[in-house]
Amino acid sequence: MLGQMQQQPLLISSLIDFAERHHGDGEVVSRRVEGDIHRYTWADVARRARQVANALDGMKLGMSDRVATLAWNGYRHLELYFGVSGSGRVLHTINPRLHPEQIAWIANHAEDQVLCFDMTFLPLIQAVHAKCSTVRQWIALCDADRLPADTGIPGLISYEAWIGGQKDSYTWPVFDENSASSMCYTSGTTGNPKAALYSHRSTILHAYAAAMPDVMCVSARDAILPVVPMFHVNAWGIPYSAAMTGAKLVFPGPALDGKSVYELIEAEGVTFAAGVPTVWQMLLGHMKPAGLKFSTLQRTVIGGSACPPAMIDAFREDYGVDVLHAWGMTELSPLGTLCTLKNKHNKLSADEQMKLRLKQGRCIYGIDMKIVDSEGKALPHDGKSAGDLLVKGPWVIASYFKQEGGSPLVDGWFPTGDVATIDADGFMQITDRSKDVIKSGGEWISSIDIENIAMAHPAVAMAACIGIRHPKWDERPIVCVVKKPGAEVTRDQLIAFYEGKTAKWQIPDDVVFVDAIPLGATGKMLKTKLREQLVDYKLPGL
Amino acid sequence: MLGQMQQQPLLISSLIDFAERHHGDGEVVSRRVEGDIHRYTWADVARRARQVANALDGMKLGMSDRVATLAWNGYRHLELYFGVSGSGRVLHTINPRLHPEQIAWIANHAEDQVLCFDMTFLPLIQAVHAKCSTVRQWIALCDADRLPADTGIPGLISYEAWIGGQKDSYTWPVFDENSASSMCYTSGTTGNPKAALYSHRSTILHAYAAAMPDVMCVSARDAILPVVPMFHVNAWGIPYSAAMTGAKLVFPGPALDGKSVYELIEAEGVTFAAGVPTVWQMLLGHMKPAGLKFSTLQRTVIGGSACPPAMIDAFREDYGVDVLHAWGMTELSPLGTLCTLKNKHNKLSADEQMKLRLKQGRCIYGIDMKIVDSEGKALPHDGKSAGDLLVKGPWVIASYFKQEGGSPLVDGWFPTGDVATIDADGFMQITDRSKDVIKSGGEWISSIDIENIAMAHPAVAMAACIGIRHPKWDERPIVCVVKKPGAEVTRDQLIAFYEGKTAKWQIPDDVVFVDAIPLGATGKMLKTKLREQLVDYKLPGL
Repeated sequence: MLGQMQQQPLLISSLIDFAERHHGDGEVVSRRVEGDIHRYTWADVARRARQVANALDGMKLGMSDRVATLAWNGYRHLELYFGVSGSGRVLHTINPRLHPEQIAWIANHAEDQVLCFDMTFLPLIQAVHAKCSTVRQWIALCDADRLPADTGIPGLISYEAWIGGQKDSYTWPVFDENSASSMCYTSGTTGNPKAALYSHRSTILHAYAAAMPDVMCVSARDAILPVVPMFHVNAWGIPYSAAMTGAKLVFPGPALDGKSVYELIEAEGVTFAAGVPTVWQMLLGHMKPAGLKFSTLQRTVIGGSACPPAMIDAFREDYGVDVLHAWGMTELSPLGTLCTLKNKHNKLSADEQMKLRLKQGRCIYGIDMKIVDSEGKALPHDGKSAGDLLVKGPWVIASYFKQEGGSPLVDGWFPTGDVATIDADGFMQITDRSKDVIKSGGEWISSIDIENIAMAHPAVAMAACIGIRHPKWDERPIVCVVKKPGAEVTRDQLIAFYEGKTAKWQIPDDVVFVDAIPLGATGKMLKTKLREQLVDYKLPGL
Repeated sequence: MLGQMQQQPLLISSLIDFAERHHGDGEVVSRRVEGDIHRYTWADVARRARQVANALDGMKLGMSDRVATLAWNGYRHLELYFGVSGSGRVLHTINPRLHPEQIAWIANHAEDQVLCFDMTFLPLIQAVHAKCSTVRQWIALCDADRLPADTGIPGLISYEAWIGGQKDSYTWPVFDENSASSMCYTSGTTGNPKAALYSHRSTILHAYAAAMPDVMCVSARDAILPVVPMFHVNAWGIPYSAAMTGAKLVFPGPALDGKSVYELIEAEGVTFAAGVPTVWQMLLGHMKPAGLKFSTLQRTVIGGSACPPAMIDAFREDYGVDVLHAWGMTELSPLGTLCTLKNKHNKLSADEQMKLRLKQGRCIYGIDMKIVDSEGKALPHDGKSAGDLLVKGPWVIASYFKQEGGSPLVDGWFPTGDVATIDADGFMQITDRSKDVIKSGGEWISSIDIENIAMAHPAVAMAACIGIRHPKWDERPIVCVVKKPGAEVTRDQLIAFYEGKTAKWQIPDDVVFVDAIPLGATGKMLKTKLREQLVDYKLPGL
């Protein structure tokens, strides 16, 4: 027997309708690419999102056709979020930091029909447009009078000219909530990028979850600065959760330097900011020498990589700002865990609380997670056993766009590629990437742990730990080290430095000094490349 | 094109799984009917909910079969919430305050197969059990040794004996998320009760929404005291939102007097309590003379009826507790609005904020609302225009169980039967019940406003305003008044008392002194009965 409740599909259009009807005068503020501040309201976003929808209808774009963006965080990007998905098309946010060849490859693979870009990226588009065979309309996200006369891009128009003549009334179509709404390619370190294809349902459920007090705690009393880019997994879903709650949005545009971000936080009364550690490092670097303080900022959510403890301390103690670790992936829409404490942790000492805050956090309801050993057997949640992290839930992918790479699931669970521990309270901590972990004598050694110890040595600028084949132990760790300019340390000194800092059997067998460690486009170490460079390397004594 | 996300139905079983896996040692504390305090964890709830499921399987109860409860807020009731719905059956929570005849009628209409009751209600069950023809198992929610030898109820067993021998392992079935999960009859003032039949989907979406910061703001740092009964619209969904977040639950059982509630709040570190104004009145009545304070309570959500401003003030100013108005209905699962302020309201004076706090609040995302005039035309959200309040959303009913009363919807909207205003910021305020509003010369007069003025007169104990047919104005208001014992006031004095307190045309045409105003089982005035009593009444001058 079915319940007798109203059937209303979970659609992204309902978010912008809600924001307009109930938070019409709520502010959306953007620092534009042009440098000035743009200020309008949720009612304006809704009105212009409907113009976007009418413009797409006018182009005869079909249901699920892809509209791409190559853009910073700003109001026009926000209008596209709602206008494109709301009208049934798929918003494809492209990461402009990728190699131009890869951008063209992605646009072709996604079969993008429209591509909207910030003027920052005009040279990039000029370089790649001829290779993007499916794009039939290029749109520059700028005022009509800012468009250069001769860009060499056929048919290029400004966004304002594109939507300017459109009606601002529109009836959002109603369709299956499982319809595709948006897509995002992952920047894998090997092979071609693969795309997560989100649905309206997954997006709305994620937005509800993200707004909860134990997650990003989004309310109508917040002014949110998403420093995390809208081209990267939908800025962690903040545009959707903000519309759902009527929160004020403050967009930084391309200006992510400490001074610009600080000024925006203060001028707009930002209460909550979200981003990666490097941005906060720049922010603190600007504030500290000038003795600046925050007057409204209450909390930051930090994801992308682990936040250094010193930064958590600085935010909390020097500035009274709560720092929350988050963990997620493109394949998870992206949020999987947030590090908020439980009632019982209030009694813990500051040191013990800090130990918890350094973890990636607890599962959000909707997501379930487990850790397994190499045979796929579930490991205990004891905070010690480390295993491959698997997740499932309604905002986790089932497969990649066009089924690239086949089915990624293992018995319905998505393998994250991370190695983690989970403690009895459900706090998860990433210890390594699966492909980087060193399997030695049936035990696992975290490459990150080994690197962190080397990095603590005053002469070491960068360290990368990799496993080398060993006839008896399967693998043994070695550490590749870049020395700081003018600093000296010998192999034996560094090996000795590990004594007492980790179990004896985890100490690397060797140190290899290198001039540089190969890095990818997003700053991650490319250990595959490093292994190629060391193909002729032999472990001492073998 | 569909998105490529995991398909996972939204099922109530996933809530208790989540609470067990990620908040296993989170506490659930109950004051039992027996008077003592019972204390266990979410892992225990999960374990015993699985025993309930096994017991129901053992009885060969089919999918969607109804299991009824007649019980206070307590841990066994909580286990039934998850065990019954989780295993695919429908939990039917019966309001024990209804007339016994009505309870029997409801049990038969719902075709309840199992009925679980607290020992408080043994005499009630002894009186009605023979009339409940579909019930094949009566279960007393008590320890095995508390069951009287001879109750006269055939086959009666204790809950502990019923689940005691059951295995505590169970695989929750997976089914359509639109399946019925629970039901609740409304206590209408006319006709037979009608039931809302909730689904798993509507329950989970409501639980997400209810947990949001602008709604009940439920987190793992909360200890929640739901004084609102679990037999009344699922205690506003708190059991579900608590499992979703791992919040501590504190159940008061039948002891709702000020002393018991106060002691529980202090002993268990309650941070958030939810209930109707009368319970808080008793609580403050206990605390004030003794000079008691709260040490952990942060906020209360008050619904069911409007909270007197003096009580809001007392909670805020004397006790530092935030009071939030909520509005909802059985047909809305029940939450429709919560009165949380927006960012821009922080700047308002305390008086101006209070004006907002007295309203029923803003729409929760998921619900949409509008007000319409007698022709069904939408009225402006100006805070002045009053009209019939209509709502829609995924946790609003589409129809009643067994289609009783036909289709209640008007163009997809559910008419709430309330008359309300909505201001430009979306704050809704109930001004009357539709059937009580007086339509005079094309304008509406709120019966509540007219009653409130009379009630402010020192000689008036109770007042009920009703409309009387008028050849020119359609209707004109009169006010029926019960005088305080020993107090005196004349018709003309009371009419004069309205001068300057309301618009001239809204002043009642007459005052009728009565000995008593007929009240229903839940304490609401029965204006239909009052009208019957006044069938021969004539307006002065006609």
